[in-house]
Amino acid sequence: MKQIVTLFIILIALNVVAQNVERVEPPNWWAGMQSPDLQLLVYGEAISTADVSLDYPGIELVSVTKVENPNYLFVDLKLGKDLKPGKFEIQFTTGKKVAASYSYELWERKENSANREGFNPSDVICLITPDRFVNGDTGNDEVEGMKEGMDRSYNYGRHGGDLRGIINSLDYLQNLGYTAVWLNPVLENDMPEASYHGYACTDFYKVDPRYGSNEEYVELKRELDKRGMKLIMDLIFNHCGSEHWWMYDMPMKDWINNYPEIKITNHRRTLNQDPHASEVDVRGMVDGWFVKEMPDMNQKNPFLAKYLIQNSIWWVEYVGLEGIRQDTWPYPDKNMMSVWTNELLEEYPNFNVVGEEWSMNPAIVSYWQKGKYNADGYKNYAPSMMDFPLQSAVAQGLKNEESWDYGLIQIYEALSNDFQYPDAGNLTIFPDNHDMSRFYVQVGEDVDLLKIGLAFFLTTRGIPQIYYGTEILMRHDGSEHGDIRADFPGGWEGDKVNAFTGEGLSDEAKAIQKYVSAIQNWRKTASVIHDGKLMHFIPEDGTYTYFRYTEDEAVMVILNKNAEAKTITTNRFNEVISGYKSGKEIISGKTISDISEINVPAKSAVIVELSK
Amino acid sequence: MKQIVTLFIILIALNVVAQNVERVEPPNWWAGMQSPDLQLLVYGEAISTADVSLDYPGIELVSVTKVENPNYLFVDLKLGKDLKPGKFEIQFTTGKKVAASYSYELWERKENSANREGFNPSDVICLITPDRFVNGDTGNDEVEGMKEGMDRSYNYGRHGGDLRGIINSLDYLQNLGYTAVWLNPVLENDMPEASYHGYACTDFYKVDPRYGSNEEYVELKRELDKRGMKLIMDLIFNHCGSEHWWMYDMPMKDWINNYPEIKITNHRRTLNQDPHASEVDVRGMVDGWFVKEMPDMNQKNPFLAKYLIQNSIWWVEYVGLEGIRQDTWPYPDKNMMSVWTNELLEEYPNFNVVGEEWSMNPAIVSYWQKGKYNADGYKNYAPSMMDFPLQSAVAQGLKNEESWDYGLIQIYEALSNDFQYPDAGNLTIFPDNHDMSRFYVQVGEDVDLLKIGLAFFLTTRGIPQIYYGTEILMRHDGSEHGDIRADFPGGWEGDKVNAFTGEGLSDEAKAIQKYVSAIQNWRKTASVIHDGKLMHFIPEDGTYTYFRYTEDEAVMVILNKNAEAKTITTNRFNEVISGYKSGKEIISGKTISDISEINVPAKSAVIVELSK
Repeated sequence: MKQIVTLFIILIALNVVAQNVERVEPPNWWAGMQSPDLQLLVYGEAISTADVSLDYPGIELVSVTKVENPNYLFVDLKLGKDLKPGKFEIQFTTGKKVAASYSYELWERKENSANREGFNPSDVICLITPDRFVNGDTGNDEVEGMKEGMDRSYNYGRHGGDLRGIINSLDYLQNLGYTAVWLNPVLENDMPEASYHGYACTDFYKVDPRYGSNEEYVELKRELDKRGMKLIMDLIFNHCGSEHWWMYDMPMKDWINNYPEIKITNHRRTLNQDPHASEVDVRGMVDGWFVKEMPDMNQKNPFLAKYLIQNSIWWVEYVGLEGIRQDTWPYPDKNMMSVWTNELLEEYPNFNVVGEEWSMNPAIVSYWQKGKYNADGYKNYAPSMMDFPLQSAVAQGLKNEESWDYGLIQIYEALSNDFQYPDAGNLTIFPDNHDMSRFYVQVGEDVDLLKIGLAFFLTTRGIPQIYYGTEILMRHDGSEHGDIRADFPGGWEGDKVNAFTGEGLSDEAKAIQKYVSAIQNWRKTASVIHDGKLMHFIPEDGTYTYFRYTEDEAVMVILNKNAEAKTITTNRFNEVISGYKSGKEIISGKTISDISEINVPAKSAVIVELSK
Repeated sequence: MKQIVTLFIILIALNVVAQNVERVEPPNWWAGMQSPDLQLLVYGEAISTADVSLDYPGIELVSVTKVENPNYLFVDLKLGKDLKPGKFEIQFTTGKKVAASYSYELWERKENSANREGFNPSDVICLITPDRFVNGDTGNDEVEGMKEGMDRSYNYGRHGGDLRGIINSLDYLQNLGYTAVWLNPVLENDMPEASYHGYACTDFYKVDPRYGSNEEYVELKRELDKRGMKLIMDLIFNHCGSEHWWMYDMPMKDWINNYPEIKITNHRRTLNQDPHASEVDVRGMVDGWFVKEMPDMNQKNPFLAKYLIQNSIWWVEYVGLEGIRQDTWPYPDKNMMSVWTNELLEEYPNFNVVGEEWSMNPAIVSYWQKGKYNADGYKNYAPSMMDFPLQSAVAQGLKNEESWDYGLIQIYEALSNDFQYPDAGNLTIFPDNHDMSRFYVQVGEDVDLLKIGLAFFLTTRGIPQIYYGTEILMRHDGSEHGDIRADFPGGWEGDKVNAFTGEGLSDEAKAIQKYVSAIQNWRKTASVIHDGKLMHFIPEDGTYTYFRYTEDEAVMVILNKNAEAKTITTNRFNEVISGYKSGKEIISGKTISDISEINVPAKSAVIVELSK
């Protein structure tokens, strides 16, 4: 011990601390990005005692920032407009001695990268919880050195699903008519427990080895591309996992909010908007932790903010994403969220970002959407938001008995509130997701109501997102997250029921597969659903009729909640259908020669493409 | 009969129809108004066959418009800037013969008329249903020739209350701390049934003789002025009474919507905002009738629009109003409502208008308020709106058990939604009104909850309005309008209970009189309540704390719903109370020497004026 102390003193005296570089993040970058700024986080023992230099045509080393922890440096670079892809050394020197060096690469961007088209209303998104879908590679079920292994018997355990499984299932998803996939987070969650959900990231630049690798993630995208399908990544700016590497050696005291004395968030979702809110309550919401396993990151720290923003851009560019789903939207610092969406959209003007603001209040949800006028001057640039108000209205509206205030009128009124959104057509709409009971369970396991709900979400305004397994009536007895996110039958060797082959599936489930496939495959080319206007009529008599229409096309949708068939006289809809004479019902494929009266079977939806 | 026909033919042949002038409306006007335009509706048999002329310095006869019905003429005048008050003849001539003449007066405006200060957050408004308050003049209980007489035994009958009764009660209202009075409509309702409520006007320029006269209405205002009290008039632009004089001889076919085939409104209150609404549904809402006794006026008809706008200005000027409460706000044509509020505010920039948009959705209510940015480009100029969302939240929040979503949090969240209003501080707030169960009944006839509710409404942002009789615990068994709007005890000779003298009043009722009086009289000069900011804190443990504050003053209000007293440690509120040491509780009058802990008795509110 004495010797070590002596050595340490000598090193200090000579200012020759042994530096090394454990991490440089982002680990690489691209030439030709819109923004000229790049900030590298350099992590390594005593790295801050080194001088930094580099030499590459078109790159200016703007500044090197030391922070509280000597094991971190933040290196700001300015990238020239005509920068060429290539490699260069970042050298860390002490006096004249090169103490460490890091080889940094500037990659070439893929063609048209900046102009990539984000997910949009022409898409139907399948949401998949990777751990619970398909175990395509049993070799990564247990990974040496990682804190949690596989335990299929435990609802919060890891079940072995992975990227390979998803890659193997793309034909199935494509045949169902999906055009996009949103995966719950795939980044490393090296947590001792419940790591399967992915929301406690421990490395922002690495796919969890139990799901696969960064390269397999790229392979998944390549396979999606072959099928014309898009990929949406789930990111979490609000928190990381308590086992994140930097939690053991924090760059700055204010990197994490309320640390080490943890405060749990108050979860009051009006605080970002409330003009009467106290600062102590706002901080209690925004700076509080979700759970003690998820440290609340302080996005007011400009280095952390930059880190997260660059991380998101890195993944877009690295994988070729068409969208980001941002978790727990109102919890990070809202000003940073504004900077982020702005910079991301500056980089990719046609990209899409969807935020999770789990509020039933459209005034709160719309506050964040790009183009919203907010009286407090706040601007965000998220093109899409998750439409929680509509989700709730549809589930309730279908389940509730019809009355003045309840039933289909709830769906109608939810859409009436679209005046609050700058772009309701770009909202992401969904019957359910991984955080709530499956829609089928929400409507009392009534297959007819499920079908009506699906027909609705697939034809109203917005970008539909459907949870994996909806098409085979996946259900759950328990209502815990771990129960809801159940294993997809057929995803594991030996499964007695196989949704891919149909083996062991009930006829009812098979029928829903066909039902979803019929509507979703039709929807792929039904451009009037993608960008037609919506006109709806006050629900009457347990039925709700609406239209998607352009100058030349019109689709009529009628939802009938009644236990008996209804004949709808359509002259009430003349302002849309005048000129149209016949039609084709999409689900049944039947031709309707005269649309003046439409028969809608008991408890069902009809989708009628109108013809002149 | 044959002779009459012959005479008629001769008259037609000679073009010498006997003209007369039954009505010219507005019946007079004022010199020196802001707007130079004045449009006279002239009504008289065959009046349209006459030529119109007048001669008065500064008045230009711009146009005379004949409409479908020959018994009407619309005469447009342009009034010069330096017009002097005076009288002139409007002559109706046929050829060279003066067939009729009408003596028109231009009155002198009262000093400072244009700059009158409307009701505002310094006020507390007492809402009175005139028929049910005090019968001050038994001589007008029955009026010769009017269709409905008095019947106190019938809940929808006329009970005899009148303007004289209100005049006689002003000291009582003043002592209670009211600074403004809103009367349910006082204009003539010569309807065969249920005429007591006043919402079926049969003459827009005449106080109902059973309430008194136009002159008594002015006298009421004079008496209010003596007490520094304001008057708010209840107007209805949406409909008139089916016995309105013009219903027997309509100026134009489109004067009334859906006539004579009556359609009842669909009452869907999202239709004015819904971007997906069908025109047939919008028309069904806006052009539909309330009830068959209330013809739905067509404000898209420019003559009717002008008529209503001028009528409102006439009453402001004639009586000296400080405000208008506009009934059924979203039902008239919204463009006309925009023109109306704009023109009214051009004429009286400091005036106030409060609209009845009975929606629980702040997005819908705020749509109408002056200064609101609406994405559809719509602008209204109403400075105030009735805050129905807050009313509902308070009634429910007090009555519901405390939980994550229910209880005081409902009040808190209602106010959090103030970000949707351009000026939440100018909303009119109320525990109840003439159209709903009394607040006391809404909270289960729990006197403590009533008191908490009153303390809240009298100290939060906005302009409080309280229904007559709240201060003596007026209640009702039946829930029909006629039951809710019960006779005020002491308003009729022989009443065994007399709220004015206290005779026969329960101790509980007397205590509420004192309670209301204490807060309202304090409020008169508590300017921090009038224009201080509001800051509130998330309710905790069945208590809700908020502050009204300026740089120099602060009032702390704590609502405690618990069945036991609570001691509130106030350091949580440091961002407002830092620097304040002591206080005075307003209701009890007690001094609090140290505000670091505040004891709030069980189920009660404390209002503490803080001192440094």
